[in-house]
Amino acid sequence: MSIKIGILGYGNLGRGVEAAVKKNDDMVLKAVYTRRSPDSVKIRTDGVEVKTVSELEKGNEDIDVLVICGGSATDLPEMTPKFASLYNVIDSFDTHARVPEHFKNVDTAAKSNGKTGIISCGWDPGMFSLNRLYATSILPDGKDYTFWGRGVSQGHSDAVRRIDGVKDCRQYTIPVPEALEKVRNGENPELTTRQKHTRECFVVAEEGADKARIENEIKTMPNYFADYDTVVHFISEEEMKRDHSTLPHGGSVIYSGETSDGVNHVIEYSLKLDSNPEFTGSVIIAFARAVYRLNREGNFGAKTVFDIAPAYISPLSGDEIRSHIL
Amino acid sequence: MSIKIGILGYGNLGRGVEAAVKKNDDMVLKAVYTRRSPDSVKIRTDGVEVKTVSELEKGNEDIDVLVICGGSATDLPEMTPKFASLYNVIDSFDTHARVPEHFKNVDTAAKSNGKTGIISCGWDPGMFSLNRLYATSILPDGKDYTFWGRGVSQGHSDAVRRIDGVKDCRQYTIPVPEALEKVRNGENPELTTRQKHTRECFVVAEEGADKARIENEIKTMPNYFADYDTVVHFISEEEMKRDHSTLPHGGSVIYSGETSDGVNHVIEYSLKLDSNPEFTGSVIIAFARAVYRLNREGNFGAKTVFDIAPAYISPLSGDEIRSHIL
Repeated sequence: MSIKIGILGYGNLGRGVEAAVKKNDDMVLKAVYTRRSPDSVKIRTDGVEVKTVSELEKGNEDIDVLVICGGSATDLPEMTPKFASLYNVIDSFDTHARVPEHFKNVDTAAKSNGKTGIISCGWDPGMFSLNRLYATSILPDGKDYTFWGRGVSQGHSDAVRRIDGVKDCRQYTIPVPEALEKVRNGENPELTTRQKHTRECFVVAEEGADKARIENEIKTMPNYFADYDTVVHFISEEEMKRDHSTLPHGGSVIYSGETSDGVNHVIEYSLKLDSNPEFTGSVIIAFARAVYRLNREGNFGAKTVFDIAPAYISPLSGDEIRSHIL
Repeated sequence: MSIKIGILGYGNLGRGVEAAVKKNDDMVLKAVYTRRSPDSVKIRTDGVEVKTVSELEKGNEDIDVLVICGGSATDLPEMTPKFASLYNVIDSFDTHARVPEHFKNVDTAAKSNGKTGIISCGWDPGMFSLNRLYATSILPDGKDYTFWGRGVSQGHSDAVRRIDGVKDCRQYTIPVPEALEKVRNGENPELTTRQKHTRECFVVAEEGADKARIENEIKTMPNYFADYDTVVHFISEEEMKRDHSTLPHGGSVIYSGETSDGVNHVIEYSLKLDSNPEFTGSVIIAFARAVYRLNREGNFGAKTVFDIAPAYISPLSGDEIRSHIL
């Protein structure tokens, strides 16, 4: 009895989820749903159908958990509540400020239809959030730091691509080594945005474009770059393809806290990921197992990673994890 | 409405739990229970009673959760099931091979009396176990490594103290840097016991004792030292007191796994602890909060850290953790 997975949206994350399903013997990919023409979408799993999203809207697809792979700005706020009334769902909604509203919408839709959904699953939000919660609960008298990178920020890469004269861009977020070092030593420094991360852009400019203007527009772009030290490199299309075709990422949650005067402890959770979307897809698929199980137990409504007892994401039994992993 | 904590056993761990209670505003220490004469036990919290364990056995002490601080060899297998029939309990049972049996005994006692208990709570077993479970569930096609140290192993220190002519010993477990490096690089090496850790002993010998014999007995001791490279230093009592009076520890759980061919990810969870018992006590106290809440919800029986949704260990509400930590 495999858990039947549907994927809505077949971009980088959708492909990452597809890869993750293949690594889990108790799961099977039933279908990929797309807003594009299904004929134009070629997936990597033999014998699995690509269907239109309108099929999904009928509400009678044979899937246990629908993984919704969409953007947090406009897709997920609309799609996750809508499909949570028809299917068990999971998404990677990452607009931190709008989590309460999204949670409530998904909760209402799911509860009134006997469905279960996890929102904001992945590594941040997701595994990093869990580590912040564990650490702050264990050491209430402390402070947490989150560093991202070295890795590709797709939001920042997109922002640069919108600049006139830019053909392509890959933006890397890089933690400042001195800041990391201080935090790891338990010094609990106060750090500005600029002191925590630097940004490095690899840009393919259109022929004849004014590179000085592009560089200036990047470095002064509010929210995205103005508060950071940014390095800009202009490269060729060939170099972009050769050196920047993967989406590595990672980072660290570091927490430092005291249990009595002068007695300090440092907890660090770090990720080094060859592929951000494949790792994110793998976290989602592990928690999809929890969605399925909770729903069968009659535990309906919206959840986050905080609400999931870790045993629910493992394919092993309680006896097995106590014997082999505890 | 504070959560009322009782501590059974006032050694290093009991004092660590006491320190942790002070850092949590929603908790209060009600009493310390001891097998010694209560008059001989001086605790660090004003106005809290020290009582005999026989008071506890009557079953009507006013505590919400009893933290049982005893040894895993003989104390906990007997004490935790016994007191789980009278109180909600939590312990740090760490004999991995006997976990299933201990779990069953505590489960039976607790369930038949409407009580809740968490066993094997701390950092290993405990936080390290959680990280092994999360990592292996997210990346099923991978391998996990646990390194301990640099830190004091009390079991190994005790073993050396039992050698004839040894007055005192402090044994440090140290990960081998080259092994750590390979694992962090995602090389997934096969490592023998000797290749993973070295052991360093600081020994105070009795006057006139044969140091060469002591050193040899240490280095050849089965299970404890024979499979390791061990360094032995003889020091004075003054040096022991000056340089080795704290109980630092730590270590790392490192997990490396693939999501598709050649696409690798490394997850690392590391602890650097100034005081092993204070950190362990802090983990226990956070999970004591979960014991209390689960019991009030009517969720009885034995649990491990795997069974606890992380939200249960936080003093914050669901809304608060979603808004501020997710």
